[in-house]
Amino acid sequence: MKTFNVAIIGCGNVGGGTAKIIQETAAELKKRAGGKEIKIKKIITLHPRRQAKRHGLPLELFCSDKEEITKEQSDACIKNVLNDPDIDLVIETVGGSTNHIHNLHKNILKSGKHLVTANKAILAKHGNTIFDYAKEKNKSVGFEGAVCGAIPLIKVVQDSFTGDLINSITGIVNGTSNFVLSRMNAKGSTFEDALKLAQKLGYAELDPTMDINGMDAANKLKILIQLIYGIPATEQSFPVKGITAITKEDFMVAKSLNSTIKLIAFAIKEKNKVYSFVQPAVISNQDFLYNVNGATNAIKINANYSGEHLFVGQGAGSIETGSAVVSDVVFIAKHGYIKDIKESTAPIKHKQADFNDYPASYLLIIKTKDNPGVIGTVGTAIGDVGVNIENIAQSIISGEDWFLPVEVSKCSAKQLNKAVSLIKKRKPKLIEDFKYIPIFK
Amino acid sequence: MKTFNVAIIGCGNVGGGTAKIIQETAAELKKRAGGKEIKIKKIITLHPRRQAKRHGLPLELFCSDKEEITKEQSDACIKNVLNDPDIDLVIETVGGSTNHIHNLHKNILKSGKHLVTANKAILAKHGNTIFDYAKEKNKSVGFEGAVCGAIPLIKVVQDSFTGDLINSITGIVNGTSNFVLSRMNAKGSTFEDALKLAQKLGYAELDPTMDINGMDAANKLKILIQLIYGIPATEQSFPVKGITAITKEDFMVAKSLNSTIKLIAFAIKEKNKVYSFVQPAVISNQDFLYNVNGATNAIKINANYSGEHLFVGQGAGSIETGSAVVSDVVFIAKHGYIKDIKESTAPIKHKQADFNDYPASYLLIIKTKDNPGVIGTVGTAIGDVGVNIENIAQSIISGEDWFLPVEVSKCSAKQLNKAVSLIKKRKPKLIEDFKYIPIFK
Repeated sequence: MKTFNVAIIGCGNVGGGTAKIIQETAAELKKRAGGKEIKIKKIITLHPRRQAKRHGLPLELFCSDKEEITKEQSDACIKNVLNDPDIDLVIETVGGSTNHIHNLHKNILKSGKHLVTANKAILAKHGNTIFDYAKEKNKSVGFEGAVCGAIPLIKVVQDSFTGDLINSITGIVNGTSNFVLSRMNAKGSTFEDALKLAQKLGYAELDPTMDINGMDAANKLKILIQLIYGIPATEQSFPVKGITAITKEDFMVAKSLNSTIKLIAFAIKEKNKVYSFVQPAVISNQDFLYNVNGATNAIKINANYSGEHLFVGQGAGSIETGSAVVSDVVFIAKHGYIKDIKESTAPIKHKQADFNDYPASYLLIIKTKDNPGVIGTVGTAIGDVGVNIENIAQSIISGEDWFLPVEVSKCSAKQLNKAVSLIKKRKPKLIEDFKYIPIFK
Repeated sequence: MKTFNVAIIGCGNVGGGTAKIIQETAAELKKRAGGKEIKIKKIITLHPRRQAKRHGLPLELFCSDKEEITKEQSDACIKNVLNDPDIDLVIETVGGSTNHIHNLHKNILKSGKHLVTANKAILAKHGNTIFDYAKEKNKSVGFEGAVCGAIPLIKVVQDSFTGDLINSITGIVNGTSNFVLSRMNAKGSTFEDALKLAQKLGYAELDPTMDINGMDAANKLKILIQLIYGIPATEQSFPVKGITAITKEDFMVAKSLNSTIKLIAFAIKEKNKVYSFVQPAVISNQDFLYNVNGATNAIKINANYSGEHLFVGQGAGSIETGSAVVSDVVFIAKHGYIKDIKESTAPIKHKQADFNDYPASYLLIIKTKDNPGVIGTVGTAIGDVGVNIENIAQSIISGEDWFLPVEVSKCSAKQLNKAVSLIKKRKPKLIEDFKYIPIFK
């Protein structure tokens, strides 16, 4: 039977892991692909020798046997790959959401080849565009590796929840942030120290901006929301807060409530409205997500009929994400297509709604000095905006600062914003900081 | 576009849940099935009126509007369904592994209809037979509901782990047993009391034999092993122990080691050998499975490249399992087929090996009286069979009985059997009971 030839553009973390798996599991992949031998015909990278050595790959698979090639040489190699009629599929593992990559995707499809990518940033940025383009060219785009690495969320949402309706998803989808927060929780570290350690151990990149500011998690959430509720990623807009403002005192407060703080990607459907956010949230120690530590990812799916599901696995990593990429290659080799981002969504038109209107439980952490009257002023303002206080726990004292934890019953962030305005107006100097964090119970 | 008509034979728990979902989600299912309207044409049950009322289904969908019909009348209805050229697919939710059901499966396929079933017992008993038969007739058999209810294990193993090699699976796959053991752990109940409560609350059937003797879990494990390693269920044979011999003292011992006891279905591959069992095992409080309580199911998959995965969800229940059945119906309606049990397995021929030869860590619980010399005799015998003791914890005293916990390092059950023989020969009256339970750390 015919060979199924692939080219890999970009041989960093994920590209290298992908190539390694294809090389090592040839016999298994052939059987799974219905007898077609999946073969790497070319790997294109700016540093052929280094990447071959790093991933234990034969140098002859690479576009050159040199230590380094120029951007122009790399472009020429890509051109050759796209013109090679023997190549059936191209794996893009360069990353980034530049126009250059978007054009590369288009050119791959235009040249009659399937595309597999783990590039969440560009899928979130361009939404349907590349899938529409693929359809036009009668080719497919596989993207299992784009959301939570090895956790098989894409195929699960597309084919396994088709007998159900998904009410909500709650996930820890960024390994770097989760590593940092886990460390802060376990060791009482500051954010800065925990991040430094993450970088030292390879859990955070040298530039971790997209991870710690929540954007990476937001991109993954956008793809999931598009898959589940059919709202194109490009039409979504929701609150995104990273973890940079989380302090060790916040963890002290959370701990006093038998909870911890996790960066949570969340979406919930109410009728045809979808409320979503990425932000740090309070997770109780009774919740499965409480024990998801380090670089591990986890997604909780609440479905109308089948209830609560949990999917846990490695959300990043070279061979981990590579295994998801390879599963797409196998599927396309066997079936000649793979489902696109618009399949298996809900039939009714869902709309994005503003999470700031959504009634959620919140933990307020009020930073102040040892002043009398704090509870009275805060309590009055919260009452004035129509919100009930559930519990006022003991203050955490750190140096000269007092941190007063107040749990309020379901209300919107807009109500809490109003309360803050009232307090600031009434007692301008009483409160130094006023943080509110959604609580998941 | 054409309607996709289904009939449901058996309207108990799962059949009723399946019908309810199809009725309630018509619009969603139509979109997911590529525009085909999935319609229930007939529901066959011995108690039409009762089941219509119980599941809130229109009586006109049923084979009769009577309170009860005879076996003969039901058979006549089935005959009509099989002869109806408009029916595309039949859902069997009667259950049981009788020849009658096996023949029903064959007749459904023979009459040119697809089959969807959640019947693990018959799939495990007949292995490939029904899938071979379906292939011959150019029809498909969907069985997502057969293993762990709503957890999408079948499709995940078939399509998501195709870029990887599964090393082992470790699962809590029987909700009844897990409810009973969770209760014994949380409340210190005896097995009998916990089982009675489970029956009272509907978590255990009036005849819970298959659940508590481990056979239900073994059937699910056989299907998973066939899917993953390609060993037909009918050729598998492994140790199956239920939970009936687990006592509250066993839980006291486990607790003293910061652990609990769970009924575990386990399979591990070493080269081309697959070792497996269903039996109670010691699960540490550091393990995710420790917190899987009540009727919830959980499966841990360890894969060569992507590492550890966890899938948690509702392993039983009417609409929960129904949602898995419906996902198969949608898939077949859309694609005209669904993958069979032999797809996506490893290409090399795996062989079943005897778990009693497999080196595992064990907890020995030695029941004795307050006799001097117990540790010496036990320690000597264990040493004589070449096994190392890792830890001897403090004895649990319950009435006149002492329970001595001994953790041994990796050894085979056969070695431990030999040690017991030695002790019985040397000091026939010293030990009253000698239990060994695998430890998962």
